[in-house]
Amino acid sequence: MRIVDIREKTVSIASEIRNAYIDFSKMTVSVLALTTDVVRDGRPVVGYGFNSNGRYAQGALLRERFIPRIMAADPQGLIRPEGDNLDPFRIWDVMMANEKPGGHGERSVAVGVVDMAVWDAVAKIEGKPLYRLLADRYRNGQADEKVFVYAAGGYYYPGKDLDALKAEMQGYLDMGYAVVKMKIGGADLQEDLRRIASVVDLVGKGERLAVDANGRFDLPTAAAYGEAMESIGLRWYEEPLDPLDYASHAELAQGYEGPLATGENLFSFQDMRNLLRHGGLRPDRDVLQMDPVLSYGLVEYLRMQEALKAQGWSPRRCIPHGGHQFALNLAAGLGLGGNESYPRVFAPFGGFADSTPIVDGYIELPAVPGIGFEDKSKLIDLFRAEFP
Amino acid sequence: MRIVDIREKTVSIASEIRNAYIDFSKMTVSVLALTTDVVRDGRPVVGYGFNSNGRYAQGALLRERFIPRIMAADPQGLIRPEGDNLDPFRIWDVMMANEKPGGHGERSVAVGVVDMAVWDAVAKIEGKPLYRLLADRYRNGQADEKVFVYAAGGYYYPGKDLDALKAEMQGYLDMGYAVVKMKIGGADLQEDLRRIASVVDLVGKGERLAVDANGRFDLPTAAAYGEAMESIGLRWYEEPLDPLDYASHAELAQGYEGPLATGENLFSFQDMRNLLRHGGLRPDRDVLQMDPVLSYGLVEYLRMQEALKAQGWSPRRCIPHGGHQFALNLAAGLGLGGNESYPRVFAPFGGFADSTPIVDGYIELPAVPGIGFEDKSKLIDLFRAEFP
Repeated sequence: MRIVDIREKTVSIASEIRNAYIDFSKMTVSVLALTTDVVRDGRPVVGYGFNSNGRYAQGALLRERFIPRIMAADPQGLIRPEGDNLDPFRIWDVMMANEKPGGHGERSVAVGVVDMAVWDAVAKIEGKPLYRLLADRYRNGQADEKVFVYAAGGYYYPGKDLDALKAEMQGYLDMGYAVVKMKIGGADLQEDLRRIASVVDLVGKGERLAVDANGRFDLPTAAAYGEAMESIGLRWYEEPLDPLDYASHAELAQGYEGPLATGENLFSFQDMRNLLRHGGLRPDRDVLQMDPVLSYGLVEYLRMQEALKAQGWSPRRCIPHGGHQFALNLAAGLGLGGNESYPRVFAPFGGFADSTPIVDGYIELPAVPGIGFEDKSKLIDLFRAEFP
Repeated sequence: MRIVDIREKTVSIASEIRNAYIDFSKMTVSVLALTTDVVRDGRPVVGYGFNSNGRYAQGALLRERFIPRIMAADPQGLIRPEGDNLDPFRIWDVMMANEKPGGHGERSVAVGVVDMAVWDAVAKIEGKPLYRLLADRYRNGQADEKVFVYAAGGYYYPGKDLDALKAEMQGYLDMGYAVVKMKIGGADLQEDLRRIASVVDLVGKGERLAVDANGRFDLPTAAAYGEAMESIGLRWYEEPLDPLDYASHAELAQGYEGPLATGENLFSFQDMRNLLRHGGLRPDRDVLQMDPVLSYGLVEYLRMQEALKAQGWSPRRCIPHGGHQFALNLAAGLGLGGNESYPRVFAPFGGFADSTPIVDGYIELPAVPGIGFEDKSKLIDLFRAEFP
C-alpha cells in the first residue's frame, strides 16, 4: 500500500472577533487531503487534515518541505511492518528529516496538519473511529463514551456590551453546554470584572466560567487580576502570562489558589516539559491545553503524554485547545479531561459531528471510521469541494 | 520619507556538508530588498537582508504576512518622530501585529530578514557603517575596532578522512584564523576523539579548537563526551544537548568544567531568558550564540542584551551564530565577544568584506555605510541581480 497523492489549500477563517492579543480579521487555515491506494467501500481511502485556529495557514512549508519529503520517500518506509497500514511515526520522522532542533513554531503546525490526515487515513483503513483505534492501541481498549466540552467565546468585538455578552453565553447554555469561557485582558480590570460578574450571574456559579487572558499580562497585572477574581471560584484562569515565562507562572501559582490553565502556545514536547519542570503548576488542579494540531500532531502529543505521566500528571488534566474533532478523538481515546469547543466561530473547522448534540456539557462521538469528518456535513463538503 | 517597495526571493545555498543533525543538500535562504524614497549619492537608499543558514527560506511568510503588514501601514507610523529615518522598533511592532505569543520559529527568521534590511537602510540613510550607528546609539560611541572571529567547519561529508579534515583546518590557519571549530556527534566517540586529536595536533592547543554537537546528544552521551574531552582544554563545547532542555544543561554544567556554548536555536528573548534562568550556565565562562537574524532581528537581540545584562552576563559572552556581516556589525557596535565565520560554506552569505582580511584571528570592519554589503562584491552582485 502507499500514499498516492497529498494536496493542500489555504482557506480563510476570518472573523471580527478579537482577544487580548490579536484580531482574527485575516486568519487563514491550511486544509489537506492525503489519498492512499487502499480501497474501502469501493473508493480509495482519503485522510483529511486542517490546522487549528489562531496560527496561520502553512501552505508554503507544506509544499516546499513536508509533502515533498513524504512523496520522495520509499513508500515501504512509510507503512508499518505488517504492510497493511500507514505508520504515523515513520511518516513523522521522514517529515522532520533535515530540520534542526529548537524553533518550534509554524513548521509544528504544518507537520500537525499532515499528521491529522495520516491518522484519519489510518483509522479509516482499520475501519474504526480514531478514538477507538487510540483506545485499542494505548489504553487497553478503554475509550471514554462521552467527553466534557466547554464553550469558548466571550471575545471582544466592536460595540459588544454586557447584554450581548450574556446573550452569547445564554446561547451556549441553550445548546447544552454547562461550562463557558470568556476573554479577559482586552479591557481594564474593572470593566473585565463587570463582564465576569454578569456572566457568573447568568451561569449560576464561578465553577461554570473560565476566563482567558491569552498571554497578555505581565506578572503584576496577572497577580492583580488573580487577586480580584480569587473569590469567584472560577473554573480556571487561562494564559495569564506569556506562555514561555515559566518562572512567572511559578510565582503566580504561589499566590493564586484557583486552577490555572496554559499550554496552547507550547508547540513541542520540549516546551511542555519545560512548563512542567519550571512553571510551578499543580498536578492536582491545573489544566494543560496543548493543541495536538499546532504542535506536530498526535505523534508528538503522545510524547507529551509520556512526559507528563513521568512527572506525576494525569491525562485528565489535559483539555486541548482548538475545538476540533481531532482533539475530541484524542480526549475520548487517551482519556483526557475534555476538549475545547467554539460553537460560534471558526466554522466549519470548529465543532463536532452533526449527529452528536451536547448534553449537560458532554458529547458523544459518532461511529464513523476515522476522525468523523464524514458526519460533519459542512466540513466534509468543504474538503470535497477543495479536493474534488 | 517612506518605504516604497519590499521585494523578496528564495535562493539556494545547498551544499554537501552534514552536521550531527541535518544535511544541507536542500538548504535555501530568503533575500530581500527594501527600497526607500531617500536619496543618497544620487540613488534611492536600498536596504538588503537575508536569513542566516541552517533554517530554510521564508518567502511565503514574508509575502503573506510580514511585507503586506508593512506596506499597509501608515508610512508615518514606520519612521522615527524626527521624520528623517525609519524606526526599526515601530516596523517590528507592525510586523508582529496579530501574531500570538509563543511558537518562536520560522516567523522569527522572516522578521529577522526584514529587520536586517531595515537596519541596513537606517545606517545608509545616516551615512554610517551599522556598527558605528549602534555604538553611537547604545554604547556612547565606543565601537570595537576589530572583532574576534573563528572559522567554523569540520563538517562531515562522504569520504572525508583525517587528512582532509586537517587540510581544511590548515586552510583556515592560512587565512589568518587563530581558532577553529569542528563538528562532533556525527560519528562515535572514539572516532570523534581521533578527529579532535588530529586537529589539536595541528592547531597546537585545545584552546584554539571548539567542538559542536548540534544538539544531538542525550545527557549521558553529552556527559561521556564531556568527560573524554575535559583534559583537552577546548575553547568551548557547543550544543551538547537539545537547545530547549535547560535542566540537562544545568546538570551537564555541574560536571563539565570547561566552557559550554549554546543559543543558536533559541529564537526569542523569552527562550534565551529561560536558558539563563534554568540552564545553569556560568557567566564567567560560557558562550551565548543567539543569531540575530534567526531570532526576530536586532530589535529582539537588543531585548536579549537587556535581559542578559540584568542577569549578570556581559555582552562579551555573546558570540553569535551565522557568520554574516550583520552579526559582525552587532559584535563591533554592541561590544560582543566575537562572531562566527564560515570560510568555506554558505557563500556568498557567509564571510565578510573584501577589503578586510583576517589577521591573527581578528577582523576590522569596512568604512562603508550600512552593513557593508557594498564591500563584498559577490554578495552585492547577487542582491543587484536578484533585485534589478
